[in-house]
Amino acid sequence: MKTDIEIAQEAVMEPITNVAAGIGIDADDLELYGKYKAKLSEEFLEKIQARPNGKLILVTAINPTPAGEGKTTTTVGLGEAFGRMGKKAVIALREPSLGPCFGIKGGAAGGGYAQVVPMEELNLHFTGDFHAITSANNLLAALLDNHIQQGNELGIDTRQIIWKRCEDMNDRVLRNIVVGLGNKTDGYVREDHFVITVASEIMAILCLADDMKDLKDRLSRIVVAYNYQGEPVTAGQLKAVGAMAALLKDAIKPNLIQTLEHTPALVHGGPFANIAHGCNSVRATKAAMKMADYCITEAGFGADLGAEKFFDIKCRKAGLTPDAVVLVATIRALKYNGGVAKADLGAENLDALKKGIVNLEKHIENLQKYGVPVVVTLNSFITDSAAETAYVRDFCEARGCEFALSEVWEKGGEGGIALAEKVLKAMEEKENDFHVLYEDEMPLADKITKIAKEIYGASGVNFAPAAVKQLKRLTELGFGNLPVCMAKNQYSLSDDPTLLGRPSGFELNVREAYVSAGAGFVVVLTGAVMTMPGLPKAPAAYNIDVDNNGKITGLF
Amino acid sequence: MKTDIEIAQEAVMEPITNVAAGIGIDADDLELYGKYKAKLSEEFLEKIQARPNGKLILVTAINPTPAGEGKTTTTVGLGEAFGRMGKKAVIALREPSLGPCFGIKGGAAGGGYAQVVPMEELNLHFTGDFHAITSANNLLAALLDNHIQQGNELGIDTRQIIWKRCEDMNDRVLRNIVVGLGNKTDGYVREDHFVITVASEIMAILCLADDMKDLKDRLSRIVVAYNYQGEPVTAGQLKAVGAMAALLKDAIKPNLIQTLEHTPALVHGGPFANIAHGCNSVRATKAAMKMADYCITEAGFGADLGAEKFFDIKCRKAGLTPDAVVLVATIRALKYNGGVAKADLGAENLDALKKGIVNLEKHIENLQKYGVPVVVTLNSFITDSAAETAYVRDFCEARGCEFALSEVWEKGGEGGIALAEKVLKAMEEKENDFHVLYEDEMPLADKITKIAKEIYGASGVNFAPAAVKQLKRLTELGFGNLPVCMAKNQYSLSDDPTLLGRPSGFELNVREAYVSAGAGFVVVLTGAVMTMPGLPKAPAAYNIDVDNNGKITGLF
Repeated sequence: MKTDIEIAQEAVMEPITNVAAGIGIDADDLELYGKYKAKLSEEFLEKIQARPNGKLILVTAINPTPAGEGKTTTTVGLGEAFGRMGKKAVIALREPSLGPCFGIKGGAAGGGYAQVVPMEELNLHFTGDFHAITSANNLLAALLDNHIQQGNELGIDTRQIIWKRCEDMNDRVLRNIVVGLGNKTDGYVREDHFVITVASEIMAILCLADDMKDLKDRLSRIVVAYNYQGEPVTAGQLKAVGAMAALLKDAIKPNLIQTLEHTPALVHGGPFANIAHGCNSVRATKAAMKMADYCITEAGFGADLGAEKFFDIKCRKAGLTPDAVVLVATIRALKYNGGVAKADLGAENLDALKKGIVNLEKHIENLQKYGVPVVVTLNSFITDSAAETAYVRDFCEARGCEFALSEVWEKGGEGGIALAEKVLKAMEEKENDFHVLYEDEMPLADKITKIAKEIYGASGVNFAPAAVKQLKRLTELGFGNLPVCMAKNQYSLSDDPTLLGRPSGFELNVREAYVSAGAGFVVVLTGAVMTMPGLPKAPAAYNIDVDNNGKITGLF
Repeated sequence: MKTDIEIAQEAVMEPITNVAAGIGIDADDLELYGKYKAKLSEEFLEKIQARPNGKLILVTAINPTPAGEGKTTTTVGLGEAFGRMGKKAVIALREPSLGPCFGIKGGAAGGGYAQVVPMEELNLHFTGDFHAITSANNLLAALLDNHIQQGNELGIDTRQIIWKRCEDMNDRVLRNIVVGLGNKTDGYVREDHFVITVASEIMAILCLADDMKDLKDRLSRIVVAYNYQGEPVTAGQLKAVGAMAALLKDAIKPNLIQTLEHTPALVHGGPFANIAHGCNSVRATKAAMKMADYCITEAGFGADLGAEKFFDIKCRKAGLTPDAVVLVATIRALKYNGGVAKADLGAENLDALKKGIVNLEKHIENLQKYGVPVVVTLNSFITDSAAETAYVRDFCEARGCEFALSEVWEKGGEGGIALAEKVLKAMEEKENDFHVLYEDEMPLADKITKIAKEIYGASGVNFAPAAVKQLKRLTELGFGNLPVCMAKNQYSLSDDPTLLGRPSGFELNVREAYVSAGAGFVVVLTGAVMTMPGLPKAPAAYNIDVDNNGKITGLF
């Protein structure tokens, strides 16, 4: 069997100008990065504003397991299927983070015959957007510490600095550091922290900004620290906005690449869904809706994280209304949720399936709370039995969902036509009454509690004393009307990654809250979720290589 | 008067494919980064190997002063002048570092009508080379600490780690840090340091590597630490080479842009000359020599740093023989060296000029030690008097140098023709007996002493006890035959930045030495030179902005 990178490297790509021409985009509207990557020009983004909007389809999934679910694969394959059916579709994905490519997770370009290409470039530096975000983040950090060093006119309390440095690398020793050691010229000593770039507020801002003006407004609102009077100090006060925006000038333009079947794909922005809001950029999603009749997008990890934040943050803030949701599962993952060990997932096991399907059930119920038509799909594996598949189909249809098998991994777009037809059917026949989960006016603690109880299935919330204090302060400072961005482990509906299936009777542990005033949400850290991953014992980096002709191996 | 960025933004650039076509390069040999930037493909670099070499002309300067010298401006203008004269010339420059753009120094694209463009993109992220270097550097650091965390099989002594993290930002508080605080999962606590990316050994390796194979060999030799037995631990032992090389796959390809007069310019690699070896990549220099009859290149800061390392490291290691050296000075800078305050440099002052010209004299003497024909040029300012210019001309000619005024800042290539003619004359008429300053076999301490005495004019060298120990150990480990890469402040021939003119009777203070085994030299830190700059009280970042149309202002 061929690996994903082998399939990707064998692909014959179309010049990206041809892909663009296929949906009526002129070469002049593109800024080329080699033959197979381009950014959409600002002029083009302006020009398409007057067009009508295409339909917006979100692809989400059950909680991830080591068995693999294939959310991105399904998103890509569904786009390819629309293409095969003669429909005009554009996919909108997140850019992969570089750091995890060297750890466990690998890249994020889809899989099998449902991939976006060029796969290696997408997974490594791509068009440099994340490097630009890292630079802007760390320029702000340098200006902050330099302000303190040069007299601290704003009276920044070095014990109350919120802004963290960042790096697109899995580097555990940078989680907690002390900076400023040495001499007088080397700054003031203080505790500091690095987060991974995808967790930076700049990433969230880039993904939520409408245009350069909005980007700058948001950058200026970033709260970097508190002063000795307890008042917020902003990036605007540090005079950092213009230089940061200059660094982000190109990064805010959506990137266009293609699938293996030459379906256009906008790949732009990439906050993680466990520690950030988990969606690609609003600009790319909106552009895709103007460029085609169908925009197929995804949100990170399970629907408890990705879809919740897609609805409650991205759709709320950008005024988007999704037309359908595709919920991806696999028989293997459902059996894993039913307690089967990874090695035994190949054998038919209806009992385990019935036991584990509660995870899918909960996600169906959650998505239905938002009033959007739901289509469930099984990303098929060769080991799935007919009885298992039939059981899941009946289970979903009994709950008012459309259902289809997806075979896009093996067959590309052809394997997604059944799913595409069900998605079209759902959008035509099912009622759409989209609404967010909570109103802006609801107090922060109540928003958190509502998500914990209604989405995660918690019995209640245990707020750490520090979190209580922080939420009170944020409310007093006028941030109480913002939505909350939940940071939670992705493996469980609860904040304990070992609780699979559909846990109940647990309390969600909220340990910290801080405002991302530029992004426009309050980040809530639960359980032991980390904003800087580490590397495993045998990192994926050990297997990555490049030969003398520049051909890369070992990336997955 | 127009600013540099205004002149650059008004320029009508040729599509880079046209610029390439002008020297016989096919569009297929380029990898485009937008319309005005491209990388040379590996196939092209391979293809031109068989061609004869063009002449190699190095542009260097006296010690920099706040008055400005204009080395890059002269390099660019000289290339434009060759173009005006119908000669085939390619310029080879370093890429600017991002961090200093936000501090004091500004960018590095030349000035006036002798600039390379697009100026803003060159100064900000360009083609992403430095970001790739930062990523590779920090991946190695993460793999190193992860190795320790996961059991430390190689027995790395955490008190003897040499490898440092890096960032392309001026950030003083990262000079000395403690990492690994927190819990067991957050790593071992140890002292660490960030350097600016241009000081990373990866930058030096990229600039000295012949091709991908050589790059990987060099990466594998990097000494990252010592083990408890005192033996070196390498990047190869950490299994970091393949993944680092994959990150650098595109960064090792030279970048092609153009001057304001459409002269081709290869801009590739950019180690600082005060803390690293200060030259653009060997690959770019060699490619330029194959692409044209004249390759005009520069080396950073004054000739004591840039030219010395160009000759003794780059030419030695790459087997290059320079055909001529252009030494740039200004009347203003010479008067500054003669003790005139910056505000008074506009007034004629022959006494100060005579007093300050000793700095130029010493650099002439130094360059002549290498046996290469020297052409001195004055980058002219409107305030220069005829008497002052005549004095410098006579001074240089009396010392066997050709001399010409350069007016490229004001007039572009037209203003460099007189200089170009003198360069051609020198190459035709003067004897060229190029040789390096010291032999490989000379002991490390003797090499340092020879440079200190013969180039800097020191009376001797004061080796700190730590440095003595380090040099002894490096020699025992078999690194004694490497050239030395001197890290010294750029403002003075000595290691004390306040000693202008031609200081004598001083001792050079050597405080530390370590091997860059991949780059192939021993780094020698002198005086108080720093490998991570800081930001000033009012950083240039405060003035940088970008408008809603993406137009950048305030970059210089």
